[in-house]
Amino acid sequence: THGGPTATPSDHASIFADLTAAELRAVRDFLRGRPELGLTERSGDTLEHNTLFLVELLPPNKRAALRHLDGGGPAPQRRARAVVFFGAQAEPNVTEFSVGPLPRPRSYRPLRFQGGRAVPFSARPVTQREYELLHRALAAATEPLYPLLRDTTGFWFHNCTRRCLTFSDIAPRGLQPGERRTWFVLQRFVEGHYLHPVGMELLLDHRDLDPRRWAVRSVWYNGRYFSGPQELAALYERGAVAVARLPDLADPLFSSYVPRGPTPAGSDAHGAKVCEPRGRRYRLHGNRLQYGGWSVAFRLRSSAGLQLFDVRFGGERVAYELSVQDAIAFYGGDTPAAMQTKYVDAGWGMGSVTFELAPGIDCPATAAFVDVHHMYDSAGPRRFPRALCVFELPTAVPLRRHFDSDFRGGFHFYAGLEGTALVLRTTSTVYNYDYIWDVLLYPNGVLEAKVHATGFIHATFHTARGRRYGSRVHSHVLGNVHTHLVHYKVDLDVAGTANSFETMDVSFENISNPWSPGARVVQPRLRRERIRTERRAALPMGAALPRYLLFSNTRRRNRWGHARSYRIQHQSHAGSVLPRGWKEEKGVSWSRYHLAVTRHRDSEACSSSIYNQNDPWEPAVNFESFIRNNESIEDQDLVAWVTVGFLHVPHSEDVPNTATPGNSVGFFLRPFNFFDEDPSVSLRSAVIVRPRGPSPAQPEVQRWTPDPPGPCAAPPPFSYNGTNWAV
Amino acid sequence: THGGPTATPSDHASIFADLTAAELRAVRDFLRGRPELGLTERSGDTLEHNTLFLVELLPPNKRAALRHLDGGGPAPQRRARAVVFFGAQAEPNVTEFSVGPLPRPRSYRPLRFQGGRAVPFSARPVTQREYELLHRALAAATEPLYPLLRDTTGFWFHNCTRRCLTFSDIAPRGLQPGERRTWFVLQRFVEGHYLHPVGMELLLDHRDLDPRRWAVRSVWYNGRYFSGPQELAALYERGAVAVARLPDLADPLFSSYVPRGPTPAGSDAHGAKVCEPRGRRYRLHGNRLQYGGWSVAFRLRSSAGLQLFDVRFGGERVAYELSVQDAIAFYGGDTPAAMQTKYVDAGWGMGSVTFELAPGIDCPATAAFVDVHHMYDSAGPRRFPRALCVFELPTAVPLRRHFDSDFRGGFHFYAGLEGTALVLRTTSTVYNYDYIWDVLLYPNGVLEAKVHATGFIHATFHTARGRRYGSRVHSHVLGNVHTHLVHYKVDLDVAGTANSFETMDVSFENISNPWSPGARVVQPRLRRERIRTERRAALPMGAALPRYLLFSNTRRRNRWGHARSYRIQHQSHAGSVLPRGWKEEKGVSWSRYHLAVTRHRDSEACSSSIYNQNDPWEPAVNFESFIRNNESIEDQDLVAWVTVGFLHVPHSEDVPNTATPGNSVGFFLRPFNFFDEDPSVSLRSAVIVRPRGPSPAQPEVQRWTPDPPGPCAAPPPFSYNGTNWAV
Ligand SMILES: [Ca+2]
Ligand SMILES: [Ca+2]
Ligand SMILES: [Ca+2]
Ligand SMILES: [Ca+2]
Ligand SMILES: [Cu+2]
Ligand SMILES: [Cu+2]
Repeated sequence: THGGPTATPSDHASIFADLTAAELRAVRDFLRGRPELGLTERSGDTLEHNTLFLVELLPPNKRAALRHLDGGGPAPQRRARAVVFFGAQAEPNVTEFSVGPLPRPRSYRPLRFQGGRAVPFSARPVTQREYELLHRALAAATEPLYPLLRDTTGFWFHNCTRRCLTFSDIAPRGLQPGERRTWFVLQRFVEGHYLHPVGMELLLDHRDLDPRRWAVRSVWYNGRYFSGPQELAALYERGAVAVARLPDLADPLFSSYVPRGPTPAGSDAHGAKVCEPRGRRYRLHGNRLQYGGWSVAFRLRSSAGLQLFDVRFGGERVAYELSVQDAIAFYGGDTPAAMQTKYVDAGWGMGSVTFELAPGIDCPATAAFVDVHHMYDSAGPRRFPRALCVFELPTAVPLRRHFDSDFRGGFHFYAGLEGTALVLRTTSTVYNYDYIWDVLLYPNGVLEAKVHATGFIHATFHTARGRRYGSRVHSHVLGNVHTHLVHYKVDLDVAGTANSFETMDVSFENISNPWSPGARVVQPRLRRERIRTERRAALPMGAALPRYLLFSNTRRRNRWGHARSYRIQHQSHAGSVLPRGWKEEKGVSWSRYHLAVTRHRDSEACSSSIYNQNDPWEPAVNFESFIRNNESIEDQDLVAWVTVGFLHVPHSEDVPNTATPGNSVGFFLRPFNFFDEDPSVSLRSAVIVRPRGPSPAQPEVQRWTPDPPGPCAAPPPFSYNGTNWAV
Repeated sequence: THGGPTATPSDHASIFADLTAAELRAVRDFLRGRPELGLTERSGDTLEHNTLFLVELLPPNKRAALRHLDGGGPAPQRRARAVVFFGAQAEPNVTEFSVGPLPRPRSYRPLRFQGGRAVPFSARPVTQREYELLHRALAAATEPLYPLLRDTTGFWFHNCTRRCLTFSDIAPRGLQPGERRTWFVLQRFVEGHYLHPVGMELLLDHRDLDPRRWAVRSVWYNGRYFSGPQELAALYERGAVAVARLPDLADPLFSSYVPRGPTPAGSDAHGAKVCEPRGRRYRLHGNRLQYGGWSVAFRLRSSAGLQLFDVRFGGERVAYELSVQDAIAFYGGDTPAAMQTKYVDAGWGMGSVTFELAPGIDCPATAAFVDVHHMYDSAGPRRFPRALCVFELPTAVPLRRHFDSDFRGGFHFYAGLEGTALVLRTTSTVYNYDYIWDVLLYPNGVLEAKVHATGFIHATFHTARGRRYGSRVHSHVLGNVHTHLVHYKVDLDVAGTANSFETMDVSFENISNPWSPGARVVQPRLRRERIRTERRAALPMGAALPRYLLFSNTRRRNRWGHARSYRIQHQSHAGSVLPRGWKEEKGVSWSRYHLAVTRHRDSEACSSSIYNQNDPWEPAVNFESFIRNNESIEDQDLVAWVTVGFLHVPHSEDVPNTATPGNSVGFFLRPFNFFDEDPSVSLRSAVIVRPRGPSPAQPEVQRWTPDPPGPCAAPPPFSYNGTNWAV
C-alpha cells in the first residue's frame, strides 16, 4: 500500500492534493473553535445541531494555479471547503465555507451558490445519524406489522436478532422543495438484501428535526396502498389483505457470490494475469502520476470522486481539469419506491464511498494501491485503504502494426508496437451499485475516461404490472428499468487556454467527374461547423452527435498548417432521463446534452452538488445556468461537459450482480492534428522485422527493448481489510 | 505453433474445418483432370487462360449440419467451393463450382448466384499475374515521364533498381459494368510507400485480356489532367507544367516504425505483460475452441475471413454461425484516385491476407498460434504461419464485484470475480490497412466481436482543395476522409431455431401519482415492438437504433416466465457511405442498415462477394435482395446482419500508422433473460471476504482457487518468419 496521495510540496501537483489527515483535523479544530458557528459533537435524539458534515480541499482558482504552474508564481494558499449543517438555527440551513490558509487556518468565509441563495436544510444529504433515527422510527412503526411480516417472510424488523429486515431508501424525498418524505423498501437482511424485497414499502415523513414528530404517511403492500401500518395490520388480522408469502431462502442464496452449479472446465484454476517482468514503468509520487509521456495530478474528492488536474502530455498541458461530476440513475416501476427513484449519486457521498479495492480482482495484483482520507459525515478524518489503484495494462492489442506483403509469399517488412496503457482506478459503491471509474493513459497521447457499472441492481417487489418496467428476475423480484448517466467536466486547454470549438462530420457532394465528361462523382466532403456560442454548443440528447467534436487553438498550427486540436469521442448509449423541464429534471439539467461547451469560470466548478438529490426542484447547482448567458466561445478558455450513459433494462443475468462486459461507457480525448506525427514514434517498444536476402533465410529483427522480457514473480498473497478507520 | 486447425474427424467441429492442404490439392488435381474445364498453368503474356483462382471449404447446408450435430445423423459430405476464371472462353466468365466429396472428389456442379446470372469476367479480382502485367504496362507507359519523375522525385519507374516508384491501385475500376480501367497512384517505393505519393495518377484501361491492347486513358499530375504520358512529357519538356518538387527523404523516414525523438521515461523497458501462472485454461483441439462454458468451431475462410460455427454456451447453441462478411472504406478527395476509391475488401482477398501474427506484439507471447492454408490466387495450397491466435485476456476489470458497507467503517462483505475473456484473433492486411479481428468469449455468456483498424492510411497527393476532404499529414500528403464499415452475419439460434425479433427502448408515461392525489408521475416505461417482417426489421443508418435488439424463442421461457433471448448491442459510429441507390452503393446495400434480420437460407450464405468490388453496379450478391421478398420473421430461423463502422478523418497522428486506441467498433451478444441467473455463478474464481467478529480482526477470506496463483515463466524469445509457402 502506497503511503498517501500527497506530493512533496516542491511538486506542482501538491497544490491539487487532497487534504491530509492533519489538514482535515486542523480545519475541524479551527471551526470548532469559532463560537459563532456553534458546532457541537453530535448527540441527543434530534437533528437540531450544528455539525460539520464535510471537509475537503477547495482547489485554487485557475488563474492563481496557472501563475504558479506556468509563471513561476507562488503556490496558491491551500484552502478547505467545509460544509456545515446548521440544524440549531432559527432557519436551519446548510452553509459552505472556505477555510484557510492551511495547514494553520486563520479565517473562513461563506461560499455562495448560484444567486447567492442559501441551501435549504431539507436539501442536505441524509447523515448516518439520521439513518439511525430512521431505522429506529421504522422499527417502531412496523411493530403492528410484526405478525404480517413474520408470517409472510419469516423476518421482521423490531426487536430482531437474526432474521432481520432492513431497508433501501430512495430519493428524491418528496414532490417539491422543502419536503423530506422518503419511500423505504423493506428487505430481508441477508447477503445481497437489495434482491430481497418483501413486498412492503413505507412512506415516512422525516422533515422535522425532532424525530418524535416523524410519521408514516402511506404504506404499500403487495400492490395496494394503506394509510399506515395500523390500517394494514388491522386488515391483515381480519384476513382482508392479499398476502405475498415468500419462500424460505435456499442455500446458497441466489443473491450471494458463493459459486454453485457445475464448474466449467478450467475455471477452478487461476487464469491469465497481468505481470510486470521489469517492474513498474510509471512513477507515482504523491498525487503526481507519470507514464509514457503523460503527467497528471489527481485527487479523490470526498464529494464527487476522481479529479485530475494539470493533465500533460509531452510536457504540454492538454487539460487543466478532468473530473467526474455526478452519476444518476432514474427508474420506472409499478411500486411507489420505483416510481419515485431518481438517484443523484453526488447526494449519496459518491466520492466518499471509495472502499477497498481487492488486489487481483478489482485491480491486477501488480497494481499500486493508494489510501485516501475522507472527512465526510464523520467526526474527523478517516483513512480509506486502497481506495485508488494504478497499474499498467497490457491491452493485448498492438498500439499499431503493419505487415507489408510482397504478394509473392514474402514481405517487405513487419512492424508493430505492443499495446499498453496506464490505468488509474477508483470505485464508488453507492449503496447497491458499484461504479468502477477508470482513466486510461495511452502512450500515444490518447486519454480514455470510462466507467463500468456492477454491483446489485435496485430492485422492487414483482407485480403483474411490473413487467412494463423491467424483467422479473426472481420469484418476487422485479429488476426496474433505469437510465444511467454520468457527467464529466473536461477543461481542455489545447495549446493554451484560448480555444474554439468546432464540429465535423461529412455530407455528400455531387460534382461533375473531371476525367469522364458527363459523369458525376458523389463523394463525402467534410462538413465543419465553428460553434460560436454556448447555447449552440449544447448538443441535445435527442439529436445525432456530429462525429468529430474538436477543441482547437486556431492560432497554434501544427507543422502542416492545421489548428492544433483535441477531439472528444463519445462511447455512450445515453438517452434522456425525463422530459426537459419536468420537475426533477431541473436538478440534472446537464443530462440534456451529450456535450456542452462553456466559458471557464471558477464559480462554475461543478455541474451538480451534494444537494441536488434532495432538492432537484430548485437545485443548488443548475447546470443550465452555465449556458443561459450564452457567452461567446471563440478563442476562450473553454470547458467541455460530457454526458455518457446507457439504458439498463435488468434481466435475469443481473442476478446476483450486474456484470461488467458490455456495461461500460466513457469517452476518448484524442489528438487531432495536435502533433506533427503520432507521438508514439518516440516509444522504444517498436519491433521491425525485415527479410534478409532470399527467403527462407532468418529475417532480421530490429528492436530497442531486450528480448525476452524475463519472468514475472508471483504476486503476494491476497490480503483484504475491509474497514476504514479514524486517524 | 499449433499444428493446424483441423479437428479430429470424431469432433463435430470438423465438418466446419477449413480444407486441409491435401484436400485443397485433391480438388485442384481433380479439376485439372477434367478436360472440359481446360484448366492450364498460368503462362504466357495474356490473361486468356482458364485458371483455378480459389478453393476453400463449402460449408454444409444447415439442415444437414444440424441433423449431424443434434440428431446424430451422419457427417455431411465435405465439399469444396472452387472458383474458376474462364478467360479462354468465347464469353469469358467466372464460375464457381461445388466439388466433392472430399477427400476424393468425384464430381462437380456449378454454384449459381442470385438470378442464376453468370459472373462477368470484368468483375473478377485482380490476380498477381494481372498485377505483374500492370506493373510492366505502367513502367512502359511512364517511360516518357522519366525526366519529370527523376527531376521532381529522385525516383522513377522503368528500369529502376534502387530509387524506384511503385503504385497503389484503387477500385472500382470504372464507372459502369464491364469496365476495367483503374487509377494508379504513383509512390516512392520506400518503407510505408502509401504515404509517399509523387503527385501523379494514371488511368489505365486493362479490360482486354491481351495486355498489348491496354492503354493509359488519362494522367493527373499535380492538380491537372493530361490526355496521356506523352502530352504531359511534352509539356514538361517545354516548361509548361507546374511541377511539385519533392524534398529528399530524411532518415529515419517519417513513414517508418524506427523510433525517434526523446524516449519517454520508462518506455525503453518492457512493460506489463499477460502471463499464465497455471497454464492454459482453454482447450484448442483442431478447429474447436472451449473456454469458460463456451464451445465454438472456427475457420478462416480465404474469401472473407473469420467464421465461427456452432457457438455454444453451457452446451446449448446460441448461434449457428457468426462471421465477417465484408469490410469497406469509401473515400472522398480532390485527386481522381481519391474520388474513385470505394474499397470493398472482400474483393481484395480479405480472408487470405492473414499474415503472421507477432508473439508479444500482435498477441500476447502466451498465445497459442494457429497456421492456416489458403489456396487463393496460387497454384496450390500455401501455408500461412500464425494466421490466428488464441489467448486468455486478463481484462483487468472485475467480471462483477460489490463492497457491502455497514456505513460505520466496517462491512457486511466484499465479493468479486476476476475478469477474464478468451480472445480469438486474426488480421487482414488489405494492402495498406490492417484490420485486427477479435472474438471475445466472456465466461458469463457474453460474446463480443470487435475489429480494430491500424496500418497505413490510404493517402493521396496534397492539393489546396484537398483540405475539404481531410488533413494534410505531411508536406505533400493528404489523408483522405473515409468511412469504414464492417458487416457481420450472426445466425443466432436462441433456444432453438424458431426465433422472433423485438426491439425495446423506453418512452415516458405520465400517470397520476397513486399515493399523492393530484400529483403526476412521469417515468420511463418499456416500449417493446415485435417486428414481424424483414423489411421492417431493416433498421436504417439514418435513424436512431432502438437500444435493445432482442432475438427470442417466444415458446421457451426462463424460470421467471420471460422468453429466452439474446441481445445484440452495437458499439459503432457508422454512417452511410453513399446516398441510397447511388451507383456503387448497390454493391454494398448491406451498408444501409445498422441491423437487418432475415429468414435463414443456405442460398443467402454471404452478404457480399469477391466480385462486388469490381462490379458494384450489378453486384453478384446484392444484400437488398435478401429482404426484398419481405418474409415473415416470426418464429423462424433468423439471421441478424450487423453493420458497424466509423468515420475516419485522418490527422497527423495517423502518421506513420493509425493507432488502435479509439479505433475499434463491434458488437456484443448478451444473454437477456436467457438463463435463470447469471451463468458466471458457476465460476470458482469468486472471492468473498467477511468480517470476523469485531474489527480490526483479520477478516475471513473464502475462495475456491489457490492463493497466490504462483509465478509466471518468461516467454520464449521472439521469433518471426514473415513468409508463407507452398505445401
Ligand atoms: Ca456561460
Ligand atoms: Ca479550457
Ligand atoms: Ca428474405
Ligand atoms: Ca437462426
Ligand atoms: Cu443499472
Ligand atoms: Cu481509416
